[in-house]
Amino acid sequence: MSRFFSSKFDNLTPYTPGEQPKIKDLVKLNTNESPFPPSKKAIRYAAEAAKELQLYPDPTCQALTQKAAEIWGVEADEVLITNGSDEILNFAFMAYCDEKTPAVFPDITYGFYKVFAQLLNVPYEEIPLRDDFTIDTQDYINVGKTVFIANPNAPTGIPLSLSEIEEIVKSNPNNVVVVDEAYIDFGGESAVPLTKKYDNLLVTQTFSKSRSMAGARLGLGIGSKALIQDLNTIKYSTNPYNINKMTMAAGLGALEDEAYTKRNCKTICKNRTYTKKMLRKMDFETTDSTANFIFAKHKVLSGGMIYARLREKGILVRHFDGERIKDYNRITVGTKKEMQAFLRAVSEILEENK
Amino acid sequence: MSRFFSSKFDNLTPYTPGEQPKIKDLVKLNTNESPFPPSKKAIRYAAEAAKELQLYPDPTCQALTQKAAEIWGVEADEVLITNGSDEILNFAFMAYCDEKTPAVFPDITYGFYKVFAQLLNVPYEEIPLRDDFTIDTQDYINVGKTVFIANPNAPTGIPLSLSEIEEIVKSNPNNVVVVDEAYIDFGGESAVPLTKKYDNLLVTQTFSKSRSMAGARLGLGIGSKALIQDLNTIKYSTNPYNINKMTMAAGLGALEDEAYTKRNCKTICKNRTYTKKMLRKMDFETTDSTANFIFAKHKVLSGGMIYARLREKGILVRHFDGERIKDYNRITVGTKKEMQAFLRAVSEILEENK
Repeated sequence: MSRFFSSKFDNLTPYTPGEQPKIKDLVKLNTNESPFPPSKKAIRYAAEAAKELQLYPDPTCQALTQKAAEIWGVEADEVLITNGSDEILNFAFMAYCDEKTPAVFPDITYGFYKVFAQLLNVPYEEIPLRDDFTIDTQDYINVGKTVFIANPNAPTGIPLSLSEIEEIVKSNPNNVVVVDEAYIDFGGESAVPLTKKYDNLLVTQTFSKSRSMAGARLGLGIGSKALIQDLNTIKYSTNPYNINKMTMAAGLGALEDEAYTKRNCKTICKNRTYTKKMLRKMDFETTDSTANFIFAKHKVLSGGMIYARLREKGILVRHFDGERIKDYNRITVGTKKEMQAFLRAVSEILEENK
Repeated sequence: MSRFFSSKFDNLTPYTPGEQPKIKDLVKLNTNESPFPPSKKAIRYAAEAAKELQLYPDPTCQALTQKAAEIWGVEADEVLITNGSDEILNFAFMAYCDEKTPAVFPDITYGFYKVFAQLLNVPYEEIPLRDDFTIDTQDYINVGKTVFIANPNAPTGIPLSLSEIEEIVKSNPNNVVVVDEAYIDFGGESAVPLTKKYDNLLVTQTFSKSRSMAGARLGLGIGSKALIQDLNTIKYSTNPYNINKMTMAAGLGALEDEAYTKRNCKTICKNRTYTKKMLRKMDFETTDSTANFIFAKHKVLSGGMIYARLREKGILVRHFDGERIKDYNRITVGTKKEMQAFLRAVSEILEENK
């Protein structure tokens, strides 16, 4: 830190992204990426766009926004395309939280919410999940703060039903409710249709998971025209050319190939069911995840030990140090082959520790 | 605007980017892009990277940072790669300006400085340029605020000498001085070597202009290790994966092909000299620009009229409404052929208004 750094960041602890190690033959199950390459159309469009990088991208992101509106069943002025969903979440914290309007979110959820609140010096409240890691919706009824809910939640994978989400949105008519649907395509029920009915609902999604585009950085927000206007004001005051040409083109390619996305999601769901079943046979408890990851804890062995031994065996999963979740590991669901390698390594670890 | 939008943005006027119209055969001289395609190596690397978009990019941007350090003659921990230079400028406003530390910049300069200050609710002072649009360095000596200087300045193109920059940096030991060198490769003298000597100097550059990569969104900041640490803290609290894989790869390709960049810069400088000479023959006054644009005003005809007539003739330049500069147009320097088309159109307009 330099002696010039503003004291307003004295209480800021930056986010720690999952490791992106370059180890050969690593089975990488730590950052919820897709095991499948992006759509061939996405790759082709991106390569085409690379030839014309000398020109700025379209700051309005018109073609991609139009196509996204079509896919999600809303109007183009109800969509904002962003540089990953982290950007739309950051914009939402900026637009809808301030000293008078605190943020509220679960104690166990996507770690970045707390970082955004600290970054922007916004007061925030963390509401503990129940002991079984489910959200008690009653905690968010008429809460009078800007609500951030990941649905399904991370790193637990547990979803809320659409009617539970609606209850929260409806009971907070004077506050924005942000529903972060990064993992919605693997079995959850999207709240996008509710944006037609409630002017205080912002739904965020990402191309990083189901569309195999984590490396492209593409996300979006869907909400009423007025909300999208606010967020555009922030965008044009931050980084108007937030989406580069290649990512914009790749996103369009991906949306023109939704059959491929759906097929991949189906495979992931099948592999999730299989892996969960096998883990439970080996004395693991797992949450009822509807995401592309499994949150699992062994009845006897510690989560930290399992994480470390897996790593030595070339299998990378994610372990969090938080007191309530330190016995768990979050395992991204990959290909059947990857899950078999993971399960084999787990069974070896259990054997070693008999 | 929605009824939820934070009142802290009541005084915010977003930035207006230059038009990116999709008109066929348009001669586009309005946003200071390069008329040349990116390096073939950049295109090839980007297309390769598109194939592996399912994985997150390296958040540390290691390979590109290392290569940039080599090119700019500094250490890797003295460089931060960002999503365009707008992002590093935003980070600098966040890190080094607050209620106690206002920002200061010229009244006529890159329009985004004012927007960042408004966005972050940071007090700011705009110091008028002299009548000839030059910066009076005395205005910035021991000024006790965070200084933002574009060098060469925009939209005038007028540079400060390295010794003038040093004088400002040296006289403000307790404040950060940000030197925005977006246009430095077209004839200015970079302050990067001074970052070794002064811990309060941050130099920002971009790949958008000399490296033909406006569409890729890539910029960087160079400063002391401590400054870069501050800015990394902001990055990891905003968008850790700020550079997508394709842009990262394209950036590396561009830096491996510096001969191409240098050749293009030389051509632009030659075309600038030619265009300026021709404009002066047609009764234009131009500033002494060392950027890839010319700032020009006709002795009789209004800037707004010339802008509008050029547009009708398929030539797009940039016109700003500000009181002191409304008689000027900013003309990006393109290929010889483009400049000839521009000059032809100008001479027709003069003929029409005889």
